[in-house]
Amino acid sequence: MAETFRIGLLGHGTVGSAFEALLAERADAFVPITGMRPEISGVLTRSRGDFEEILANADLVVELIGGIEPARDYVLRAMQAGKHVVSANKQLLSQYGEELWACAREHGVQLRFEGAVAGVVPVIRVLQESLAATRVERIHGIVNGTTNYILTEMASRGLSYDEALRQAQELGYAEADPTDDVTGRDAAAKMAILARLAFSTPVHLDQVVYEGIEHLTGEDMEYAKDLGLGLKLIGTAERVDAGISVRVHPAFLYPGHPLASIHGPFNAVTLESDTITEVTLSGPGAGGPQTATAVLGDVVSAMIPPASTPETTEALTVVNDIESAFYLHMEVADRPGVLAQVAELLGMQGASIRSVVQKGLGENARLVMILHPLLESRFYAAVRLISQLDFMRAEPRAIRVIDEEFT
Amino acid sequence: MAETFRIGLLGHGTVGSAFEALLAERADAFVPITGMRPEISGVLTRSRGDFEEILANADLVVELIGGIEPARDYVLRAMQAGKHVVSANKQLLSQYGEELWACAREHGVQLRFEGAVAGVVPVIRVLQESLAATRVERIHGIVNGTTNYILTEMASRGLSYDEALRQAQELGYAEADPTDDVTGRDAAAKMAILARLAFSTPVHLDQVVYEGIEHLTGEDMEYAKDLGLGLKLIGTAERVDAGISVRVHPAFLYPGHPLASIHGPFNAVTLESDTITEVTLSGPGAGGPQTATAVLGDVVSAMIPPASTPETTEALTVVNDIESAFYLHMEVADRPGVLAQVAELLGMQGASIRSVVQKGLGENARLVMILHPLLESRFYAAVRLISQLDFMRAEPRAIRVIDEEFT
Repeated sequence: MAETFRIGLLGHGTVGSAFEALLAERADAFVPITGMRPEISGVLTRSRGDFEEILANADLVVELIGGIEPARDYVLRAMQAGKHVVSANKQLLSQYGEELWACAREHGVQLRFEGAVAGVVPVIRVLQESLAATRVERIHGIVNGTTNYILTEMASRGLSYDEALRQAQELGYAEADPTDDVTGRDAAAKMAILARLAFSTPVHLDQVVYEGIEHLTGEDMEYAKDLGLGLKLIGTAERVDAGISVRVHPAFLYPGHPLASIHGPFNAVTLESDTITEVTLSGPGAGGPQTATAVLGDVVSAMIPPASTPETTEALTVVNDIESAFYLHMEVADRPGVLAQVAELLGMQGASIRSVVQKGLGENARLVMILHPLLESRFYAAVRLISQLDFMRAEPRAIRVIDEEFT
Repeated sequence: MAETFRIGLLGHGTVGSAFEALLAERADAFVPITGMRPEISGVLTRSRGDFEEILANADLVVELIGGIEPARDYVLRAMQAGKHVVSANKQLLSQYGEELWACAREHGVQLRFEGAVAGVVPVIRVLQESLAATRVERIHGIVNGTTNYILTEMASRGLSYDEALRQAQELGYAEADPTDDVTGRDAAAKMAILARLAFSTPVHLDQVVYEGIEHLTGEDMEYAKDLGLGLKLIGTAERVDAGISVRVHPAFLYPGHPLASIHGPFNAVTLESDTITEVTLSGPGAGGPQTATAVLGDVVSAMIPPASTPETTEALTVVNDIESAFYLHMEVADRPGVLAQVAELLGMQGASIRSVVQKGLGENARLVMILHPLLESRFYAAVRLISQLDFMRAEPRAIRVIDEEFT
């Protein structure tokens, strides 16, 4: 009979119970791979279980509590006791990652966390192992399924943001309090983790600039369609001259971009480097069984080989002011000289116009431009000045554009 | 100073020299990850180097010779001498895989081969590790960049097969003798390897049914466009009632399919299971630096942890007669009763028609149908009878259709 590999399970919510069910179903299949049979030896929830006892009876601890405390304390104590840990906790890793990875190295245990980013899409493993041989230059990701679902419904069915959000909540794709998702904070945590791995430099959630989707309108979607573009919430982590840039914001994608065809609650990540051009990974981003599959994949890997997160070898600057192409949408009075004045203010900041669409609307007009890339600080300086022009009928609206030809 | 990890390199063609260059560039980056500095300690080509001497001075052997002999002999001898082996040799692994994996297990060494399938797209690692926790039901893959490039050019620029092939040869995407690529044999070798890993059952190249793209015409492309479908060379490995099916053939894809948007020389693989729905991996399929990146990723992994290919735990039947949906293209005399006779022969074999397009062409007509899935043997029995009808003006043409709704 195969030896038992004992798993202490912390947390028993959606992912925790899916993990337990998946493990029961698949345990026998791991015997030929690992020589052992994994089994849950203890479960900790708010109302039952004792952490110390669970720890003493476990070869590995799976942390699916979420949030910072008590998850942080439990993970540290488990590693200090010489146990491997598998976690799907993006908040914890994006804020206390360096402390946790140092602890793992010090105690010679593994800390695996595939489930923390993009569910079953194996981006953590691919970054750490498959692409260990390449110098990653840039990552673009759709790493939040809730917002991608909302944007897909707005684009394909003409729903407003509020309608699409309500529908996402009814279908279980969005939480009752969707703040973390729709503000981009959830995606920011995931991008912090990916940037840390890709660039071997410490990256904290607080260093990630993020912007959500709450302000997007059906009109933005219509223009996207007119211009042949997709509108997505995109996380970006990339090398720039002065260091790295890590950010999350809505962005237009040209149709050839590998992320442009990712619809609904799916996640996808594109990894770019000089030697590999680009590799794209996509799949269901969230959901109990999907994340549980990622967690169990980590458990099986921990049962086989020693691996550890290497120390950060870089201390790159996280740069916030980078070059972006922009879409700029303005409601203006329809009178002579408007385009000239807008163009002059843009030109003063070095912004160059790629395309313009103007639509008359009675006394008013709608002016939509796509600008070539320029420093974001200079672009927003121009927008502030434009917003003060007396013929402006509403605040100008700006959304970034991602275009392989330009970036 | 970091310890040296010595690599014996067998073969110094396109991939071999790209590997040597990449290693020189990246070697320092591996010291913090592995604690060692990888270096090439010997190179074997047809004209220089001695295998025994290279083996004696290596911690790991990289085999990039290709073909069966002497590659097989060298790989076996390296493993028997206790050395890890990294290979990108799909012919060898799809024909002698069981012998090689058994040898690796017996001698406690690693045999890694990410570069053998889809270049830098990390499908081997994802199947073996990330998805170890799930029961894979089906794999669809575009695993040959040459044919995908040719089909993309035929579809987007209206080139004939011969023109597109010539262009692929001029650009270096196709070899002077393209037989292995265009007949589907290269893709069949890769699908044999993927099926072996996904289903833990022995699969030999000879068990894979394959059909190439040489017979596809510009007309097929036009119909694809009319019907809103993409036409690709698709490898499939899937569980069926009686065992598994592994095959390669041209197939129409509906636009929502994740492989429908893979263009040019790119490769992509979609892995399906009940718990994960589907995960898709895509990227550049071939090219020296890309394959070299996959090989070096394997080398770095071998420097860290022990891993081994588990024994086959299944002995599934490889089934050849499976259900497929079909496109059926017929040139017929334009006279009454033609459609009725064709439909009757199809109906006798249980084929049900999903859609029909008929175009008059003077005295003749063109009849194109999409059929609901049926056993391939029954479909081809109907086609044989149809081809003998006296109003047929040419051999009927059949191409499979992959549709998520039906399969």
